[in-house]
Amino acid sequence: MTGGAPDAPGTVALVGAGPGDAGLLTVRGLRLLEAADVIVADRLGARAVLDQLAAEGVELRAEIVDVGKLPGHHAVPQDAINALLVTLAREGKRVVRLKGGDPYIFGRGGEELAACQAAGVAVGVVPGITSAVSVPAIAGIPLTHRGLATAFTVATGHDQIADLGGGRDHTVVLLMGIGTLANSAITLARGERGGECPAAIVEDGYGPRQRVTIGTLDTIAVQAARRGIRSPAVVVVGDVVTLSPYAPEALRSRKATQL
Amino acid sequence: MTGGAPDAPGTVALVGAGPGDAGLLTVRGLRLLEAADVIVADRLGARAVLDQLAAEGVELRAEIVDVGKLPGHHAVPQDAINALLVTLAREGKRVVRLKGGDPYIFGRGGEELAACQAAGVAVGVVPGITSAVSVPAIAGIPLTHRGLATAFTVATGHDQIADLGGGRDHTVVLLMGIGTLANSAITLARGERGGECPAAIVEDGYGPRQRVTIGTLDTIAVQAARRGIRSPAVVVVGDVVTLSPYAPEALRSRKATQL
Repeated sequence: MTGGAPDAPGTVALVGAGPGDAGLLTVRGLRLLEAADVIVADRLGARAVLDQLAAEGVELRAEIVDVGKLPGHHAVPQDAINALLVTLAREGKRVVRLKGGDPYIFGRGGEELAACQAAGVAVGVVPGITSAVSVPAIAGIPLTHRGLATAFTVATGHDQIADLGGGRDHTVVLLMGIGTLANSAITLARGERGGECPAAIVEDGYGPRQRVTIGTLDTIAVQAARRGIRSPAVVVVGDVVTLSPYAPEALRSRKATQL
Repeated sequence: MTGGAPDAPGTVALVGAGPGDAGLLTVRGLRLLEAADVIVADRLGARAVLDQLAAEGVELRAEIVDVGKLPGHHAVPQDAINALLVTLAREGKRVVRLKGGDPYIFGRGGEELAACQAAGVAVGVVPGITSAVSVPAIAGIPLTHRGLATAFTVATGHDQIADLGGGRDHTVVLLMGIGTLANSAITLARGERGGECPAAIVEDGYGPRQRVTIGTLDTIAVQAARRGIRSPAVVVVGDVVTLSPYAPEALRSRKATQL
């Protein structure tokens, strides 16, 4: 046993790292990182936050284990991550499982929680700022706005999004949606939203490659191909997109006449 | 001018306070509160966080202005809040507008941002942990979970929720949904979800009256009436509800056979 009080049982905290900006880590998440013996980190968001903390001079005494996943690539299978968390906790360690965004939004946090509970390991969850909300925000796009949107749906590009329903006042956010963007845009345009519904792509929201692309459901897939858009990126669809300062004048004035 | 550097122009930061737990404030949000001259606070979430910080000995030198809204009651009209932010900033003050949850999720943050921008006041947004995600989480309910839910929709009880669509694997979160719960449950039960779809109500998620009530779309409104459920409360509908440790055995075993 290398950490914690002598003979104290190990613990696992599933901590949301937020979208990759150390300032958007929660106060509790930061304290848990500072007290941790081992940090088991995802690649997206989580590693960026650890690097920023180090650059700011925050000293973390924990060993860092990178189990990072690239989109479409699983560096470490989920079962192996679950087993690692249990093993480390059984060694008496205070383990922080640092996950990009929020542990419970497409983060498989529920599976890691269940694995720890099944093994009798003390485990808790600390929510994080999900990129579904914060990445649109950094592009000036609120998911709800009086007169423009009263509800929002978050899905992934892997879903069958034919079912989503709703009109331009029902915002849609697609995570991991670049590979399937053309299909998603066609599907959404067929519904009540129509092809002229505004759409945005925010690449690398809090990172050095941040870039915002705005068009409509009819144009966005071609724009994405022309600009060489890459993951990670968040897609936002709906009239709220017109509030972004990155929106072209034509879209912004259309919104103004609608209000 | 009472704060900031001499002759420095005032600023407004729209800061998400999270769900009412000071540990879930962001690191940047806490720093802005510590540096603020004036904090303009909502009642829900925001006031609870300020009270907890005071109890923990965090010294805030800022004047606190409470513009709190009770559900259905508007203590201070939105236009007056917008004007107050602009006036304070023009006095050279560093203003934090502390809003429950996330400023952009039913928080009217976009309106406050636009008002400041129209007045030429420097303004920025710091995301917060939305109660739409974090309140279900504290009841052990992830909004997505492999095999149970691949998408989620967030709306308010005021919406026409007939349009939401989707089945039990598409989680629905209703904020401000208690007054209209019976209608919402009937509407959702009529769709693909059906009356046996699991439903939960989490009252006062991070507060002293926290209570979790779990049933189905057919039963939840009657349960709510019997238990005297009050706002603030978050309603969650979908199979993910069965993951909660508060779920009755009958619901949990149904889930187990489905997997």
